[in-house]
Amino acid sequence: MSNPTACLLIIGNEVLSGRTRDANLQYLATRLGELGIPLREARVIPDVRETIVATLNEVRARYDHVFTTGGIGPTHDDITSECVAEAFGVPWVVHEETRALMAEDYARRDPPVEFNAARLRMATLPLGAVPIRCTMTSAPGFTMGNVHVMAGVPRIMQSMFEALAPSLKGGVPVVSRTVHALGVYEGNIAAQLEAIQARFPALEIGSYPFYRAHGPQGFAGGGVALVAKGTSASQAEAAAAAITEMLRGMGAEPVQGEPPPAG
Amino acid sequence: MSNPTACLLIIGNEVLSGRTRDANLQYLATRLGELGIPLREARVIPDVRETIVATLNEVRARYDHVFTTGGIGPTHDDITSECVAEAFGVPWVVHEETRALMAEDYARRDPPVEFNAARLRMATLPLGAVPIRCTMTSAPGFTMGNVHVMAGVPRIMQSMFEALAPSLKGGVPVVSRTVHALGVYEGNIAAQLEAIQARFPALEIGSYPFYRAHGPQGFAGGGVALVAKGTSASQAEAAAAAITEMLRGMGAEPVQGEPPPAG
Repeated sequence: MSNPTACLLIIGNEVLSGRTRDANLQYLATRLGELGIPLREARVIPDVRETIVATLNEVRARYDHVFTTGGIGPTHDDITSECVAEAFGVPWVVHEETRALMAEDYARRDPPVEFNAARLRMATLPLGAVPIRCTMTSAPGFTMGNVHVMAGVPRIMQSMFEALAPSLKGGVPVVSRTVHALGVYEGNIAAQLEAIQARFPALEIGSYPFYRAHGPQGFAGGGVALVAKGTSASQAEAAAAAITEMLRGMGAEPVQGEPPPAG
Repeated sequence: MSNPTACLLIIGNEVLSGRTRDANLQYLATRLGELGIPLREARVIPDVRETIVATLNEVRARYDHVFTTGGIGPTHDDITSECVAEAFGVPWVVHEETRALMAEDYARRDPPVEFNAARLRMATLPLGAVPIRCTMTSAPGFTMGNVHVMAGVPRIMQSMFEALAPSLKGGVPVVSRTVHALGVYEGNIAAQLEAIQARFPALEIGSYPFYRAHGPQGFAGGGVALVAKGTSASQAEAAAAAITEMLRGMGAEPVQGEPPPAG
């Protein structure tokens, strides 16, 4: 049985203008891989109603899970929630339990926070949505069908995702083994690497050149990181062993694991 | 006349698995805005032939320019170039001028680099493509129709983009003005901000909460950054003035420009 699949929609003009560097894709990609729900696509789209609705309907039909980040705050440019309602063809209505929890939270603050019309938007959900409550804020994310709607601020998004994660039905975790070697060029190993890929058709074998100007313990220079990835740890290990043997055969000194970070 | 539009395709399993954090989206978003070719969408897709071809054909029909990053190296997982040929329905053939330039480069190295079959793939382009040559490598990117194909390694991508940029017919540069204020919550300004957005329909006005634990000159705490963006600098300035006035009216001390970075 194959693993369920995921798509991420990053919703926000600020990412498309370059103002903000997205920090959610890598977090979710990593966590979803660990849960066996590999991320198959990510899209960055603007805060434009027709675009959000059309994109939601396209990807929710194509993937088992859709995660969204951004656009669920109280201001006029936060339109993700009402767009989800429109995509599902359901009313967008005040969620009474959420309103009560937010009212309680706002009243407890010192000074108390006014529960005005803008904040009430954050208690308004597509009819039938299930709130995702987290420890960072009383304004929730929510799940509607196979669409999981989360905040864009990374620490709030992470808190919402970790609250949601135990309820996601995952698959076999995706594991990877990495072998790196200094002074090896992709162009010199391509043919042998392709032969190894052919021996392990269930794995994805990737080749990533790197360059480090400096590094810990005198590590410096260029090389290649070769990654074998899939749902079978034993296959990934066998492929890593074959890659190691190939590199040794060329006189290189391969090391298991990622090269040290650039520095 | 409206500005030409752009879409970015980030091609690579390594971004979707979380192994690599993309560093090209923010660079290109910023530079394209400066050139008046605003980025309207970005997609991260895997190294899968059918996906790349179908996505290319979808977005090249929808946007004035399509930029791709990744998948043009010499290994088996580098398939972007042949997928562009397939998308355009043209043969994928050795580009003789490029082959000669690469051969010259490889022969000059000490020790010389073997111009093998894997490296010859990097001199193989869709028929009719125009190479994008840069100072970082003799293996080129290329432009095919409205599709601009670049490397995934950020410093090479940037070098290719800057070589290409002067030939791109841009529009009116996108400019923005930012006002930030400490101790202001989005929920308290949403209604007034929406009214300002209504006065400036040609601008995009965005609201971005921030939080800094520490910062230069004792700067710390939470607040909001309000951004007015569009192709008219005078409109953006007028909107920033209205935002400043609104914030002062609430007793806040607004400052033009971004808040100091987190620290």
